Amino acid sequence: MRFFSDNAAPAHPRVLEAIAAANRLDTAYDGDDWSRRLDGALSDLFATEVRAFWVTTGTAANCLALAALCPPYRAILCHKDAHIEVDEAGAPGFFTAGAKLILLDGDGAKITLHAVAAACDGIRKDVHQVQPAAISITNATEYGLVYCAAEVARIGEFAKEHGLALHMDGARLANALASSGDKLADMTWRAGVDALSFGFVKNGGLNSEALILFRTELADEIAVRRKLAGHLLSKGRYLAAQLLAMLENDLWLDNARASNAAAQALAKAAADRLLYPVEANEVFLRATAEESARLRAMGFDFYDWGPGEIRLVTSWDQHGSAIDSLAAAIAGL
Amino acid sequence: MRFFSDNAAPAHPRVLEAIAAANRLDTAYDGDDWSRRLDGALSDLFATEVRAFWVTTGTAANCLALAALCPPYRAILCHKDAHIEVDEAGAPGFFTAGAKLILLDGDGAKITLHAVAAACDGIRKDVHQVQPAAISITNATEYGLVYCAAEVARIGEFAKEHGLALHMDGARLANALASSGDKLADMTWRAGVDALSFGFVKNGGLNSEALILFRTELADEIAVRRKLAGHLLSKGRYLAAQLLAMLENDLWLDNARASNAAAQALAKAAADRLLYPVEANEVFLRATAEESARLRAMGFDFYDWGPGEIRLVTSWDQHGSAIDSLAAAIAGL
Amino acid sequence: MRFFSDNAAPAHPRVLEAIAAANRLDTAYDGDDWSRRLDGALSDLFATEVRAFWVTTGTAANCLALAALCPPYRAILCHKDAHIEVDEAGAPGFFTAGAKLILLDGDGAKITLHAVAAACDGIRKDVHQVQPAAISITNATEYGLVYCAAEVARIGEFAKEHGLALHMDGARLANALASSGDKLADMTWRAGVDALSFGFVKNGGLNSEALILFRTELADEIAVRRKLAGHLLSKGRYLAAQLLAMLENDLWLDNARASNAAAQALAKAAADRLLYPVEANEVFLRATAEESARLRAMGFDFYDWGPGEIRLVTSWDQHGSAIDSLAAAIAGL
Amino acid sequence: MRFFSDNAAPAHPRVLEAIAAANRLDTAYDGDDWSRRLDGALSDLFATEVRAFWVTTGTAANCLALAALCPPYRAILCHKDAHIEVDEAGAPGFFTAGAKLILLDGDGAKITLHAVAAACDGIRKDVHQVQPAAISITNATEYGLVYCAAEVARIGEFAKEHGLALHMDGARLANALASSGDKLADMTWRAGVDALSFGFVKNGGLNSEALILFRTELADEIAVRRKLAGHLLSKGRYLAAQLLAMLENDLWLDNARASNAAAQALAKAAADRLLYPVEANEVFLRATAEESARLRAMGFDFYDWGPGEIRLVTSWDQHGSAIDSLAAAIAGL
Repeated sequence: MRFFSDNAAPAHPRVLEAIAAANRLDTAYDGDDWSRRLDGALSDLFATEVRAFWVTTGTAANCLALAALCPPYRAILCHKDAHIEVDEAGAPGFFTAGAKLILLDGDGAKITLHAVAAACDGIRKDVHQVQPAAISITNATEYGLVYCAAEVARIGEFAKEHGLALHMDGARLANALASSGDKLADMTWRAGVDALSFGFVKNGGLNSEALILFRTELADEIAVRRKLAGHLLSKGRYLAAQLLAMLENDLWLDNARASNAAAQALAKAAADRLLYPVEANEVFLRATAEESARLRAMGFDFYDWGPGEIRLVTSWDQHGSAIDSLAAAIAGL
Repeated sequence: MRFFSDNAAPAHPRVLEAIAAANRLDTAYDGDDWSRRLDGALSDLFATEVRAFWVTTGTAANCLALAALCPPYRAILCHKDAHIEVDEAGAPGFFTAGAKLILLDGDGAKITLHAVAAACDGIRKDVHQVQPAAISITNATEYGLVYCAAEVARIGEFAKEHGLALHMDGARLANALASSGDKLADMTWRAGVDALSFGFVKNGGLNSEALILFRTELADEIAVRRKLAGHLLSKGRYLAAQLLAMLENDLWLDNARASNAAAQALAKAAADRLLYPVEANEVFLRATAEESARLRAMGFDFYDWGPGEIRLVTSWDQHGSAIDSLAAAIAGL
Repeated sequence: MRFFSDNAAPAHPRVLEAIAAANRLDTAYDGDDWSRRLDGALSDLFATEVRAFWVTTGTAANCLALAALCPPYRAILCHKDAHIEVDEAGAPGFFTAGAKLILLDGDGAKITLHAVAAACDGIRKDVHQVQPAAISITNATEYGLVYCAAEVARIGEFAKEHGLALHMDGARLANALASSGDKLADMTWRAGVDALSFGFVKNGGLNSEALILFRTELADEIAVRRKLAGHLLSKGRYLAAQLLAMLENDLWLDNARASNAAAQALAKAAADRLLYPVEANEVFLRATAEESARLRAMGFDFYDWGPGEIRLVTSWDQHGSAIDSLAAAIAGL
Repeated sequence: MRFFSDNAAPAHPRVLEAIAAANRLDTAYDGDDWSRRLDGALSDLFATEVRAFWVTTGTAANCLALAALCPPYRAILCHKDAHIEVDEAGAPGFFTAGAKLILLDGDGAKITLHAVAAACDGIRKDVHQVQPAAISITNATEYGLVYCAAEVARIGEFAKEHGLALHMDGARLANALASSGDKLADMTWRAGVDALSFGFVKNGGLNSEALILFRTELADEIAVRRKLAGHLLSKGRYLAAQLLAMLENDLWLDNARASNAAAQALAKAAADRLLYPVEANEVFLRATAEESARLRAMGFDFYDWGPGEIRLVTSWDQHGSAIDSLAAAIAGL
């Protein structure tokens, strides 16, 4: 049983069905029937007018957004453990043509208003120092913590006061929402988010993510940048259809609830080993090398996260006996 | 009936089946079973050791290759009608961080050795002028002409003599090969091609193209650049599986033969209207506005290509009555 | 006697005196007394409010301006013989992070409205093709022709109608003005120019050029980009002082008149050999290899410009016997 | 009396004389007599074959070097207080087209081998994380500390073992050498430095710095990149002449000794207030707001460096009574 990453899980059957259903001739790029329904479907979901773009990776969603929000000569404030800093090969620098990430501390990969403010205060307002243009937060964070809507709103308020844009890397936004119970609108645009990388692939999708613009005036630039970066697929309908399938009957939310529930089951079994509160679908545990080896010997796979630490990520399709047996194994260590 | 572009055609059923068959948990990114078979499968096909990378667009394949072959301060020689110049939104400039395209003339979007040599001769060898680093050719060309292996080899020889790399945009390489009867190896690495964008999407694929490196020492850089550009999908197995399905039993070649045959049928019916010889699956015709309107009234869709000119592109799935009826309609204009 | 380039001429003594006079401690970068007088001095000269930046090269002036006027994913229309295309090593691509130059034809390196309009008309308004953002013209041109103010105004009008910015490479603007007799204001901002590279180095300066912004709202971005590109010298006063010396008592105009007069003297002597009308300080002549060799044997140095063609450039300090003897030599060929 | 920065000091009279002496017609760019002597003069100075390039700023020297040493998709390890991180407006990101700076801790802006090794160890060797390509150190550091030759050699050894290039920002290398007594060769290429930004402007120069390549095979790329970045001045002789004047009779070393001696005099007077050992020409002191105000009231200008901290920088031309009076003022606080 693999608990490496929700990235590796299979796609939901309804996503595959949607791809098959899209397998007929239509207009190329994003002129097809499915792609043209995206703006409407996502505007409905967010209860405001948005512009939505399919892309195939979270890195593309994040970095296209950041390139539109930050010129080459300014900076993006983010947590030092943010995916854009740690796991995207420097893509923000490439897409923005040189913008800088200013790294912030904070427990569990959550940035604090205090850290943001301190970083801003520390920058002289002259041409020698790189001035910030945007803040990027990840929700749920890289350590499985959740910013509730009110927390995002406080960051959004700071951003607006300081003329900064706000980007949310929502690779696991579904898990964050399923956890916090907040409304999607409250968590995003009402909280001041300008652009959102809305993740589906980790949540039962196949290869389609959504970049959501609440500042719709950025849409023309994003459309060009998507093409510029080689991300305008010629048969876009297969991506759009995946997103529409995920939205239908809130499949995206059901999937997130399932993976969150699985994580909770593991958290319960490992209550005295938790490195972070389990708020989404990631479980970070203390485990000795010997304990890790025992779990692996029982057929469970996962990442070592540091000396004496392991990471377990649950997926939309993991429930029942798979989870129970891992929970039991952890409890029995 | 749509003859806009092979870009818009459906995917071949065996490609969809391969995607469905890949729908199980595996390692993320390109560590899965399918992705790991690509180098071997394509090395077999090309009869030499290659490194193969799945990407989702031809633009990505072209521009990743060009970025590895040309530094920011040098230039790529290509035809003025090349896709990289005309239809990729300036992506070569973005991926290379500023390299220049030097545009060449030539009938039917084929560059001539004479034009390449004249361009090189016209560049002073100093730091003020941009020195060329690579040549890029498209086969079949944007006007449906084919470079045979011997023609490519002459360009390849020139390139080597002048210290230039050679890239081939093979968005329709299958059509070119099906047309020329050359061997894949003769058309590519034996002719001096260093990197190839091997197209599958226009040829019955869904959303997977292949970037093939014959200079395998570039593989590490391309692997990083693919990630850097947001093109390393987390569930890469669905892309790799498509490519393997296309290779199996030479589906890629069968598809190309089918679309070429359809184009030949149209060419025969339109022999006195042809703007270019029909060597692949594109047919450019003279047609008055009134004639175009009549064809459209009969249910045929296609692009106007200029005053009095139209473009018809055939796909792997167009044959039999669909083609016959268009052929008859053209003949009857 | 060297007629290679006005680039190689000595600096005017008053420029050197100004440098010496600035040799005392002052604030670093552009906070010094001299730098702070630039905006005012140049606003007076142009009879409108401008923001002025010293830089050390025309390439820097041109490319900083273009980077502020054109995003990475759009294009600049310019003549195919423009300095930014031919002699700046691809710097526009580097400074803009990938923007494209769209090359236009036109006699004597002057672009025509017709060519601009045709280029714009040929671009599909979609994300696949690179949309223009700016026009750049060189005055005097690379072949020594002059756009009069009315000609610039027609291009400026077209630019505004089409939402394009207008940049002028004025490496030899002084020569153009001395030739046309137009007012500086009429030639620039009243004609729709948004940013001007105002050349002094070819005109008796030492190493200081001016970038002039008529759209003053771009000044903050240019200030940052100048630093970003390593062009904010720490002892800027030596550059500012040069510019102020050139402006004082219209030294810049006197110098241009002198070099223009020298060119006219040569043109008169070579009337039947001229490749272009001589409107500034460059003289392009037909001369056989044997004739060129004779001139060189007499001690005159210059560039061959192509088979049977030579280029002579006059400088602010060339007059009297030096010019007379070359004129006589040409007449006597 | 100003103690803001050595950046603001006047140029040495011999530098001005050299500029005046260069004021005659010569070949443009770097083809002139002075520029052509640079490689030789600096090869003699360093006792090895080097390639030397004049540039007008330390930022240009640093970033041109880094662009040649680090591709867009890799990283440069440097101290978190390094000039390239803190005071160059993000120029390394611009010149490299996106490379990342990995920031290290260390007292007084000196990096430690331990910090370098820990940073390298923390990077997974995969395509998701940015791999380092170079180390950059500043000598003397931004806090006026000096790496002796042996310390540099240890870093150089680590670099070579790990396949990393080594760059030295030597904006105040003269001060470092005057302080440590090491030989120039031992401090640079013998210690493993690949490229050196050799500063002269802070040390009595006017506007010419030198970029020194010990890996001479990088010279062609640097020559192109210098032009590409708009840093190839057309009248380069005025820059080359400055450098030659600084080298003549070791003026550069005499100047550094003078500013170091001035700093030592201040350090002695402020022994109980020093924040860092004074090893070059910068003096960081504890001083209350009230004390700072008193110094300023006496006519001394300097930067506040933080709450209760001030920075005094001495220049080549500050000695005698100017220094004595400040020393006395500090002692009397």
